[in-house]
Amino acid sequence: MPDSGPLGPSLPEQQPTPPPLPAPDARTPVVPDLSVTPTALHFLAGLHPPVTVPAPPSAPTAAAVRNACDTAAAVPHAQDMPDAVPAGRDLQVMSAAAAAASAVRNMPDTAEADSAVRNMPDTAELDSALQRVLRGPTGPGTASLSVARRYKPTLPDPAPRAAPAQPAAAQAVPGLYYHPVPEPDPARVEEVSRRIKRWAEDEVQLYPEEWEGQFDGFSVGRYMVACHPDAPTVDHLMLATRLMVAENALDDCYCEDHGGSPVGLGGRLLLAHTALDPFHTTAEYMPAWQESLTSDAPRRAYDSAMGYFVDAATPSQADRYRHDMARLHMGYLAEAAWAQTGHVPEVWEYLAMRQFNNFRPCPTITDTVGGYELPADLHARPDMQRVIALAGNATTIVNDLYSYTKELNSPGRHLNLPVVIAEREQLCERDAYLKAIDVHNELQHAFEAAAAELAEACPLPPVLRFLKGVAAWVDGNHDWHRTNTYRYTLPDFW
Amino acid sequence: MPDSGPLGPSLPEQQPTPPPLPAPDARTPVVPDLSVTPTALHFLAGLHPPVTVPAPPSAPTAAAVRNACDTAAAVPHAQDMPDAVPAGRDLQVMSAAAAAASAVRNMPDTAEADSAVRNMPDTAELDSALQRVLRGPTGPGTASLSVARRYKPTLPDPAPRAAPAQPAAAQAVPGLYYHPVPEPDPARVEEVSRRIKRWAEDEVQLYPEEWEGQFDGFSVGRYMVACHPDAPTVDHLMLATRLMVAENALDDCYCEDHGGSPVGLGGRLLLAHTALDPFHTTAEYMPAWQESLTSDAPRRAYDSAMGYFVDAATPSQADRYRHDMARLHMGYLAEAAWAQTGHVPEVWEYLAMRQFNNFRPCPTITDTVGGYELPADLHARPDMQRVIALAGNATTIVNDLYSYTKELNSPGRHLNLPVVIAEREQLCERDAYLKAIDVHNELQHAFEAAAAELAEACPLPPVLRFLKGVAAWVDGNHDWHRTNTYRYTLPDFW
Repeated sequence: MPDSGPLGPSLPEQQPTPPPLPAPDARTPVVPDLSVTPTALHFLAGLHPPVTVPAPPSAPTAAAVRNACDTAAAVPHAQDMPDAVPAGRDLQVMSAAAAAASAVRNMPDTAEADSAVRNMPDTAELDSALQRVLRGPTGPGTASLSVARRYKPTLPDPAPRAAPAQPAAAQAVPGLYYHPVPEPDPARVEEVSRRIKRWAEDEVQLYPEEWEGQFDGFSVGRYMVACHPDAPTVDHLMLATRLMVAENALDDCYCEDHGGSPVGLGGRLLLAHTALDPFHTTAEYMPAWQESLTSDAPRRAYDSAMGYFVDAATPSQADRYRHDMARLHMGYLAEAAWAQTGHVPEVWEYLAMRQFNNFRPCPTITDTVGGYELPADLHARPDMQRVIALAGNATTIVNDLYSYTKELNSPGRHLNLPVVIAEREQLCERDAYLKAIDVHNELQHAFEAAAAELAEACPLPPVLRFLKGVAAWVDGNHDWHRTNTYRYTLPDFW
Repeated sequence: MPDSGPLGPSLPEQQPTPPPLPAPDARTPVVPDLSVTPTALHFLAGLHPPVTVPAPPSAPTAAAVRNACDTAAAVPHAQDMPDAVPAGRDLQVMSAAAAAASAVRNMPDTAEADSAVRNMPDTAELDSALQRVLRGPTGPGTASLSVARRYKPTLPDPAPRAAPAQPAAAQAVPGLYYHPVPEPDPARVEEVSRRIKRWAEDEVQLYPEEWEGQFDGFSVGRYMVACHPDAPTVDHLMLATRLMVAENALDDCYCEDHGGSPVGLGGRLLLAHTALDPFHTTAEYMPAWQESLTSDAPRRAYDSAMGYFVDAATPSQADRYRHDMARLHMGYLAEAAWAQTGHVPEVWEYLAMRQFNNFRPCPTITDTVGGYELPADLHARPDMQRVIALAGNATTIVNDLYSYTKELNSPGRHLNLPVVIAEREQLCERDAYLKAIDVHNELQHAFEAAAAELAEACPLPPVLRFLKGVAAWVDGNHDWHRTNTYRYTLPDFW
């Protein structure tokens, strides 16, 4: 581990906190209550400081675009469309979340929208127990006990936020409900970028020389710094950055662009998974397995990145990561099965697959990267599991929306939410894309409502910090997609 | 839930115990130290009470049979065999575990062997901290604090052990290292069998009438009663029994005998997995998912069995089960990928796949079925993970050995350890089978050594009880395979 020493002393949260009595696990999840309570608004307003970003073009409503859409040219059964998607049904389904999203969408400037939320009278007047916990104790000698203050000194100075670097000028998907983020600390971005390239090239021999441009274009340093604003040190950031690079290397080499294929994927993924979840066998067969971990770039990257992670994480945090990676691999394998059989799933089936083939392993390490621990019993609570699933689902649909054009231009048919909606619900491409935005917005609102409810139900410091960390990851992830014009361009639907 | 009321008051262990400082997670697992320490012998002797079972025929050593084996008829490259598997290498590899296994194998009566172990002078003289913990505190008023005594009244009366029912007369694989178990309580077996059939037929419509004989032949009541001797009530046993039936229904219907196929399996498995790990999505798409959970027998069974389990388990126990089921599903998908591409894995690759396509989800619920909790941080310890993996691997190879003949007679090529060893190591069927026994025995010894070490390193009551529960599951699983002559017959290699 030449470039990463010990990660420094543990923060007080690193000691497991005695969990409260766990909430009963729900047998069947409840359809989200999308009404945003004053407490939720209050919690959420505290999460997202005002940030100036370029104004998106004025966004049409989905209904307005749908009326203007030439459906006959786009889908084979356009004559059935009015029955398949009655306007009344859509209106009923979208309910409060859609209305809120629409209100945000139609605001000319996101900063103004944020400001509007913060200035709502019922928000400003509330001073809930939750806010007091977020702020931490007050009085002489309590400064070190504030969660927010504890990592504040390592955050970038506010100055750079006012003068964002060039990438921040890229445009968001019009109509998307999201929160802008401060421009990531350029010094941290530069250092993480330098170190990750050294790791990729020197420690794990990740790519041949001709792929260097793609590696740089991935901008993983900017990505991870934006997603983990509370990481105490660059060493902590590196934990997330290595895993992110390893996950992408495996996806590219086993599943996607760089030699990937659905054929035989199950065998390859399982053997790679043993780099995360080690194999225990007889003395005769151990050496061949150990050697296998060095035999291709994805396994070298998994093995090395997991090694660093395990050294810094508690065993429960490592177990959580393994579980989330098993979910991810199951998701890859469902997608691969459908690719092999040419099956286009129902929209709900696609969304279920995307709950597994999902960013989830990235936000759920926020506590390890932050240098503290969300205790396992708090992580396992059904309400926490729901928050995590919704956050992962919202971020993953963001990926579908930003990578839509890239995937259309790739060889073969690539399933993503707009493509599946177009096919299964007989919508033209533009309508399907706009509906996918609505799906994202509803998921994002549901995530925020669920996080706010949990923050109120269980206002323990590691819970609140973890929820903030997940929210920060979601926002940073969107910002990376928005600004990564090397990889992504938006479709011409506006 | 017509046949299962609340599971009664929690045992004291159900409260999470403050974990000790976790052991560092190992970056690369250590090759097992197979030497059996006095402490290990001591711990293990306490696990296995003396039980009389029919004596196996005298078992030849692997080397003796190998010499007698007509390799030329069995494998295409028989002329290479002596070089491929030099006897010296085998001897070196098997080391202490093989010697111990061989000693057990050659004893004419297992009860004598057990007795011999218990009577070893260094064992009898030890009175370690571990044993004191297993026995619990002593003195007036401490009877209720003994783990062993707490569930003793619900165990079958010793009387039936002396007069085993007919199935116990079946023969074990000669040379297999295993521990006999007391004959399962016939009253419990009968009640579990009655209830599980009612659940299968009335609650989840598991099978058409013509499969009733196969369901009865599965003998799942006997299986689960043997594997969970410390279950406080039949309701607790039903938690395990429903899940076992559900897991087998999915395997049969999606993967194996009853309409299963590797084609498209990834999609089917993922959608079934959402019955365990619920989907969180928008209001529009929830109803279709909820309805999907009733749409076939495996999903009905998963959904119902998981519902009962979640009602009885803590959230961390439910999370553990989900993770183990994700592992199982990844294992199915690796096997399916190899079946689709006609790939015969290396022996180590096969064993790695079998660490996932594995009984693991069954022993790891032993605490929920026992009415207590192994706290999540103790479960996540690397040394506990190693114990669990080794136990799962040993039990799974037991399955390969007992189902060998059944699988040879099934349509298509069925990978199991003897088949893979024969193919990859150029051994005749008989040698390969005997080598697979040796692999099992080494795994079983490694499991027991690792469990004993962990019991000494972390002698907390829930850890000790969990280790005993896993060991009991391993023994019960072997006994079910041995006695299930409806499904299994041994090959004619002796």
